[in-house]
Amino acid sequence: MRRLVEAIRREGKALGEKILRVDSFLNHLVDVELADEMGRALAELFRDLSPQKVLTAESSGIVPALFVARHLGVKMLFARRKPGGEGYLSRRVPSPTRGVEAELCVRREYLGEGERVLIVDDFLAEGLTALALASMVEEAGGRVCGMGFCVEKSFQGGRERLSGYRVVSLAVVDSLDPLAVRSGLEEVV
Amino acid sequence: MRRLVEAIRREGKALGEKILRVDSFLNHLVDVELADEMGRALAELFRDLSPQKVLTAESSGIVPALFVARHLGVKMLFARRKPGGEGYLSRRVPSPTRGVEAELCVRREYLGEGERVLIVDDFLAEGLTALALASMVEEAGGRVCGMGFCVEKSFQGGRERLSGYRVVSLAVVDSLDPLAVRSGLEEVV
Repeated sequence: MRRLVEAIRREGKALGEKILRVDSFLNHLVDVELADEMGRALAELFRDLSPQKVLTAESSGIVPALFVARHLGVKMLFARRKPGGEGYLSRRVPSPTRGVEAELCVRREYLGEGERVLIVDDFLAEGLTALALASMVEEAGGRVCGMGFCVEKSFQGGRERLSGYRVVSLAVVDSLDPLAVRSGLEEVV
Repeated sequence: MRRLVEAIRREGKALGEKILRVDSFLNHLVDVELADEMGRALAELFRDLSPQKVLTAESSGIVPALFVARHLGVKMLFARRKPGGEGYLSRRVPSPTRGVEAELCVRREYLGEGERVLIVDDFLAEGLTALALASMVEEAGGRVCGMGFCVEKSFQGGRERLSGYRVVSLAVVDSLDPLAVRSGLEEVV
């Protein structure tokens, strides 16, 4: 997606070997028009699978997930980063940027038996958060119809880890130093 | 706002004396159409003040703030709940539901000198989060042109604490037991 690729080239900053800072338009200050456009693009890429719900993880996944859900006309569920307790499904996942493990939970009643769920997140890095979300959908008896990301860091192995799923990223970062970004859409458009 | 009031009456559950559970449509599973409608309503109520940015706090404030910003055609900034460090403004605020104090921070460069900022959040309870957000805007040299909330719990004193600001809530909960909810819009519509 050209506009996102351009924003990453213009404003993205590598912090060390793995972290791409995009907090000027994606996950702190939010370019709402771009976010809406990303939501529309992801919605169109999965519309043929008729997702019935969009699932993400708080906090920064909420931004793209909300717009994907709006364009699909379905509800959005965001997993919380806290211990679940009774009535919740939960998984332990490493925080993508802080290293420590933390609990991710969703209320079981909000994931339906047989429901087609689209997983959306701002970043695809190692894929562990998406995998945890998918396994909660499946434990609830639902079906993951795909996974859509704004930015994939292709050097962290997430796509390989998620190889059982249809995975689409709007922009793919192949290297942070030097910064190499391309659209993720050629394969599917 | 009628549709929100009806959703609270239908699905809201009191947890103890202060917590209203609305996670079936507002802050876990999200009714995106309702959220968009709330965003439009808040945007219209503050449009005359020409806000240039919408500010909220992660996570659940992101949902209404994103739609308010979309309807105003401006960017949205969400404060993060983590220690700030260099380049950040930060405040310590008690977590609304967990009791413990935690850090709330925004990158200073994303708040402009002289900028008109609209603060949006899902809940107005004690008003401490909104007050912390406002004081960061003011420290950066900006001006808070108003505060818009989806649900106000009027028995927790938030409105009194925020008395220097134009405060609007779409729904007002006057009591949890028994549940008493009214539209917050009569005063201003």
